Amino acid sequence: MTNILALYPKGRVTLRELGLRDGLQMTSSWPGTAAKLEWIERACRAGVRNIEIGSFLPEARFPQFADVRQLIDRVDGIPDAFSSALTLNERAVDDALATAVSEIVVVVSATEAHSRSNVNRSRESAIELLRYARARRDAIGSGPVISVAVSVAFGCPFEGNVEPESVMRVVDRCLGAGAEVISLADTVGVAGPRQIAELLGLVNPRVGDVPVVIHLHDTRGTGIANAYAALDAGIRVLDGTIGGLGGCPFAPGATGNVVFEDLVYLCERSGFSTGIDLDRLIGFRSILEREMPGENLFGAIARAGTPDSISWKV
Amino acid sequence: MTNILALYPKGRVTLRELGLRDGLQMTSSWPGTAAKLEWIERACRAGVRNIEIGSFLPEARFPQFADVRQLIDRVDGIPDAFSSALTLNERAVDDALATAVSEIVVVVSATEAHSRSNVNRSRESAIELLRYARARRDAIGSGPVISVAVSVAFGCPFEGNVEPESVMRVVDRCLGAGAEVISLADTVGVAGPRQIAELLGLVNPRVGDVPVVIHLHDTRGTGIANAYAALDAGIRVLDGTIGGLGGCPFAPGATGNVVFEDLVYLCERSGFSTGIDLDRLIGFRSILEREMPGENLFGAIARAGTPDSISWKV
Repeated sequence: MTNILALYPKGRVTLRELGLRDGLQMTSSWPGTAAKLEWIERACRAGVRNIEIGSFLPEARFPQFADVRQLIDRVDGIPDAFSSALTLNERAVDDALATAVSEIVVVVSATEAHSRSNVNRSRESAIELLRYARARRDAIGSGPVISVAVSVAFGCPFEGNVEPESVMRVVDRCLGAGAEVISLADTVGVAGPRQIAELLGLVNPRVGDVPVVIHLHDTRGTGIANAYAALDAGIRVLDGTIGGLGGCPFAPGATGNVVFEDLVYLCERSGFSTGIDLDRLIGFRSILEREMPGENLFGAIARAGTPDSISWKV
Repeated sequence: MTNILALYPKGRVTLRELGLRDGLQMTSSWPGTAAKLEWIERACRAGVRNIEIGSFLPEARFPQFADVRQLIDRVDGIPDAFSSALTLNERAVDDALATAVSEIVVVVSATEAHSRSNVNRSRESAIELLRYARARRDAIGSGPVISVAVSVAFGCPFEGNVEPESVMRVVDRCLGAGAEVISLADTVGVAGPRQIAELLGLVNPRVGDVPVVIHLHDTRGTGIANAYAALDAGIRVLDGTIGGLGGCPFAPGATGNVVFEDLVYLCERSGFSTGIDLDRLIGFRSILEREMPGENLFGAIARAGTPDSISWKV
C-alpha cells in the first residue's frame, strides 16, 4: 500500500503540481508524450514530488490524457516522486488500480447541481464511487492512496454561496466512504482568505490524521492570499499549476489555477521550505511556451524574478 | 486643521488611490488635466475618498505634476473627498501649505542608501524635512495632516534585507518629528505576508492613535496576500492604484502598485466594507485605456468580473 506519509510528510509543506491534468483539461493544445515526460523530469529535478499527470478517460474524447499510463510509469521510476490521476467512474478506478499510480482522486462536488454538470453523477453516486475505489484498493491489498477532491467548496456557479456546514457534511460522508486525503477546491475562484479560514476552522478538527489539501483558482486575484490563509490555518498541502494553466470546463468564468511558481515563493518567503528550486522551476516554463504557444502563462515571480538583493529562502 | 479622523475614520477600512501620483511617476504618458479631473470625479463617484493627486516638484522636470494645484482645488470641492500630495523638500512643503491639500507626505527611507538615491537626502535630513513640515503647519495653525511614507520598509534594492527593528527606529524618529500618519511601504515588492505581520507586530503597539498605512507593490505576486496579512494585523488603511499603475524610479525591478480594484474585492470578501462600488470602479479603467494606451493595466477582478452567482459584498 502506498504510504500516505511518503506522499505527504508531516511537518513540512507539500506543493502538488497539477498542470498535466487540471492544466490540460481546458487547453486547445497540449504537449506530446515526449514533452510531457520532459515536463515530469524537469519538475522533479526542480524538487517537485507530487504531480497529477492526467485522468483515466476515454481516449477518443480526451486525447490529451491518452498517455496517462506512460506518465505513471515514468514518475514511478523517479525516486521520491508520486503521481496522481483522476478517476471519474468505476471503470477508471479499475484501470487506475492496474497501474503504479501513487494516488487516485475521486471528485465529489459540494453542491448537487455542480456534481451533475461536472461529472454527470449525483453527489451520492460520486461518494459511492469513492467507497468503491477504497474497497477495491483494500481488496487488492496494495495500491494507491484514495483521495477525494471536494469541488465548489467555496461557491458554486449554479447554486451560489455554499455554506461551510454543508461542505463539512460532504467531507464527513467522504471520510465515511474511505477517503484518505481530502482536498477542498475553490473551483471557480470566488473564495477570499476569510472563507478559507472559516471552512478550515470547521474541517481541521474533524479529519484527524487525514491530510487536508487546499486547491485554489486565482480567478479574482485572491489565490495567493487564500494560500497564505490556508498555511496560517495549518494546511501543509497546496495545489497549483505551472504558469497558472487550467480551469474547469463546467465552471463558467473560471480562469487558471493558482500559479505554482508564485506559491513556492509565498511559502519560502513565509518560512516554509518547499524543497523546490524556484529558479529551476521558472526555467521550466520554456516547455509550455514551446509546446502550447497559444496559452496565456501567468505568474509574477517568473516576470519579476526572485529578489537578488535580499535573502528570501528558508 | 484638517481632522485626521475625517480622513481616516476609526473602525472602518480606508483605501487610498495613488494612481495620479505613484502611478504617473514612471509612465511615459499621462492624462491631461481634464482627464485627471474626470479621473478624480469618477473615482469619488465610485466611493473613493482618499486620493493622492501628485507631487510638488519643478514643472520643468516633472510636467506630469504641473497641474497639482488644480487637482487639489477640484478634490476640495467634492464632499468627503481628501487629496494628498508628496513634498520632497522645504520649498514643496511651503507651496503645499499654501493650498487646500488635505494631507502632505514626506518620504523617509528605511535605509540610508535608498534615501540618497530616491530623494537625494540623508535619512536624517528627510526626518528634518518632516519636522519642518509639522512645525510650519502648526505655526500656521491650520492646514493638512502631516504624513510620512517609510519606503523600502521590507527590503532595499541597495542594502538588502531590512530588519524590522531598524524600521521601528525610523518610525520612532518620525513620530518624534511630528508625523501624524505612518505609511510603511514595500517599495520594491519583496515582502511576504509573514514580514508584514512581523513588522506590524513591532509597530502597532508603539504608535498609539497614529494611523498606520500599508503601501504594497505586487512585484512578486504577494500583494493581495500582504494586504490580507495587514488587515489581519489590525491595519485599516491600505494603498493601491487603479490598474496597478506605478513603481519607483529608484527601485530597480519594481513593477506596479497593488491593484486597487483587487484590494476592494479582497476587503469586501473579507467582511470589511470599503464604501466603494466595485463595478463603477472597474468601469473607470476606460479613462486609463484612453489616456495612457501604452501602459499595461493589471488586475484580476477587472478581467474576471465580480462573481454574479454568490453574494460577496459586506
